[in-house]
Amino acid sequence: MISVESASEIILNEIKPLGIESADIVSALGRVLGEDISARGGNPPWDNSAMDGYALRQEDIKGATKERPVELKVIYDLPAGQTPKAQVNPGEAVRIMTGAPVPPGATAVVMVEKTEPTQGGAVKIFTEAKQGENIRKAGEDFRAGDTVIKSGSLIRPAEVSMLATVGVPFVFVHKRPRVAVISTGDELCDINEAPPTGKISNSNGYALASLVAECGAEPIQLGIARDNKESLKEKLRAAMTADCIISSGGVSVGDYDFVKDVLKEMGSSMIFWKVAMKPGKPLAFGVIGGKPAFGLPGNPISSMVAFEQFVRPALLKMAGRKDIFRRNFMAKLTKDVKIKPGRMNFLRAELKAEESGFKVTPLEGQGSGVISTMVRANSFIIVPQDSSGFAKDEIVKVQPFDSSVFMADKHGY
Amino acid sequence: MISVESASEIILNEIKPLGIESADIVSALGRVLGEDISARGGNPPWDNSAMDGYALRQEDIKGATKERPVELKVIYDLPAGQTPKAQVNPGEAVRIMTGAPVPPGATAVVMVEKTEPTQGGAVKIFTEAKQGENIRKAGEDFRAGDTVIKSGSLIRPAEVSMLATVGVPFVFVHKRPRVAVISTGDELCDINEAPPTGKISNSNGYALASLVAECGAEPIQLGIARDNKESLKEKLRAAMTADCIISSGGVSVGDYDFVKDVLKEMGSSMIFWKVAMKPGKPLAFGVIGGKPAFGLPGNPISSMVAFEQFVRPALLKMAGRKDIFRRNFMAKLTKDVKIKPGRMNFLRAELKAEESGFKVTPLEGQGSGVISTMVRANSFIIVPQDSSGFAKDEIVKVQPFDSSVFMADKHGY
Repeated sequence: MISVESASEIILNEIKPLGIESADIVSALGRVLGEDISARGGNPPWDNSAMDGYALRQEDIKGATKERPVELKVIYDLPAGQTPKAQVNPGEAVRIMTGAPVPPGATAVVMVEKTEPTQGGAVKIFTEAKQGENIRKAGEDFRAGDTVIKSGSLIRPAEVSMLATVGVPFVFVHKRPRVAVISTGDELCDINEAPPTGKISNSNGYALASLVAECGAEPIQLGIARDNKESLKEKLRAAMTADCIISSGGVSVGDYDFVKDVLKEMGSSMIFWKVAMKPGKPLAFGVIGGKPAFGLPGNPISSMVAFEQFVRPALLKMAGRKDIFRRNFMAKLTKDVKIKPGRMNFLRAELKAEESGFKVTPLEGQGSGVISTMVRANSFIIVPQDSSGFAKDEIVKVQPFDSSVFMADKHGY
Repeated sequence: MISVESASEIILNEIKPLGIESADIVSALGRVLGEDISARGGNPPWDNSAMDGYALRQEDIKGATKERPVELKVIYDLPAGQTPKAQVNPGEAVRIMTGAPVPPGATAVVMVEKTEPTQGGAVKIFTEAKQGENIRKAGEDFRAGDTVIKSGSLIRPAEVSMLATVGVPFVFVHKRPRVAVISTGDELCDINEAPPTGKISNSNGYALASLVAECGAEPIQLGIARDNKESLKEKLRAAMTADCIISSGGVSVGDYDFVKDVLKEMGSSMIFWKVAMKPGKPLAFGVIGGKPAFGLPGNPISSMVAFEQFVRPALLKMAGRKDIFRRNFMAKLTKDVKIKPGRMNFLRAELKAEESGFKVTPLEGQGSGVISTMVRANSFIIVPQDSSGFAKDEIVKVQPFDSSVFMADKHGY
């Protein structure tokens, strides 16, 4: 048996980020930038007004109050998008809109709410201002030539905003892995057939495709390979257009497991492991036709747990991501947990964020075929390989596998 | 001025979930189920083997050990996907594969690793077994007629697995909101033009479109409405095919703000607020042609912060979600924070999960036009309206706005 940690390291050492391709910046959301982005110009490009109001010479309005306003001559209007017509001289002001360039000579902007226009084309200013008040300085965000986003960054809305600001409509991003998903087994029916006795639905094909999609990768569902060499070979040949191959079933010790033989015949270099984990012991990993390939166990929960631990980090690495692992959180157990030591256990659990910290409840029904427990769970309690369990109130390691614990039904202001 | 909490409540009271439509179960990932799903049959459908091995009568192998094996006659092979040919009588065993139905008469399965076939069609069993050992009982996951997923559930890979297991290829899910995005202002250039002096890139259009996409909604980018009534009306008319409208700019007090007038002319019922928040004070909300409409501020950061606080929960509610708010976490401040009280401040910050708990650092450069700070941030520190700040090491409320704090670059076993 190999440990979860060792299997993870061996696999990830083999995985390399995919190449890059061009994408428009909104489609690039959630992908990883494959180039440094530098600014041609600075931002703001020029000193500009942070308010709708009046641009003026700060020394002109010293001592101004509501009771003793200072009156200035309004020499022109300056909407955003236009350029200043003339310099502001002593006793003058320019009516300015948010974002418009500050005219030469002006050293502050007073917001419109603290002013009042007069009949005769002047304005009363009711307040003092500090030097530079309500003026955004040219380059305060970034300067021409600055690297504004580094290669390797995940593109979030903030990065899209930055790319648009520096006028970049397309960027190079790492390719999204295309992942072939194959289920194996004569016992499987497709989900639109009513399974006769002895047969069950191909749930793994759909579960794995959705796990792939959830990573931001693109699933290619190749359906069911039957328990004979020809059928499996046909599916594997079809998988050769993908960047990565995932199969489920056919990796344990039984007689009807053709997978290994076929893989050998196809010149692949697969390793077959018993990983010290529960659920999920049997696992195959290697390279078929130059593509990383995972043979996951056939039990529904085993294949999902193995996907989470081994395939998801691999797909994120292929997509260029650096933070490829789900972070574990420490949480207080709400009940005792008893485990047979020897394998790392991943117990389906319900993690809750409370005022006092995280609490976690292991769920009833931990069998590797019990899907209803997976539906109720949002996380795995990680029980170390040598542990025989924990007592209520102990602090344990928990791996959330969805966003539920980070969302709430009430605003939290 | 209205508080953030009140504005949020008024808005969300107006928002209703969209109707439902059919989707295949992999495309339904991340959407909200609009119907209860019940099981036609139970799972497992019949008692079945959890192992590759031998199905036998448990009492036949009492006392069996490696040294003193019990020999049983193998009456047939039972691969997964086939049905039992005959009952198991005393002294007999059936070679069975994982998932195959347990033949009548058998009361346990011994895994193949603890057996050895003989030359004469028999098998040596090296271990005892408990009654029912390695047998998954029919219905242990769920029974026929059980509601296996409730209407209103978010569809994750676990739900896709369940839907495939119960043989449901298509489900009714809430529609994804289609969201029209309009930027307003004569000062804006599209991002493929080099802006002349006085003009800036339409970064909000792209930032808001990507924020919409990140919610799982569908952005419809309508580009720039110029500062005249006709241009804005044209864009609003185009927006009438969407489920929701977002504009940025034109909601503050200045003269060149046509938005309000046009909205009135179009028979809309918009409210214009000053929300007690920073960044993000001006905000409009109402209904245009029966669709909820948001007028966000024009400053890049203001519009993103207002989107996060008001629009995102609304779009998630339209999509049928119940947990529509980002959860806040308590974190320890790494430096002092000074604030002018009177508005709720959303400070761009870097939140980190450490062994000892969450730590948060407010970033330099909090101006509402400073996009580089947004690129470096992963969260907002929420400073209450009446607060004048915090001292280093105080525990503050933090709202993460991406997944970075939940991901890691090392496995955490």
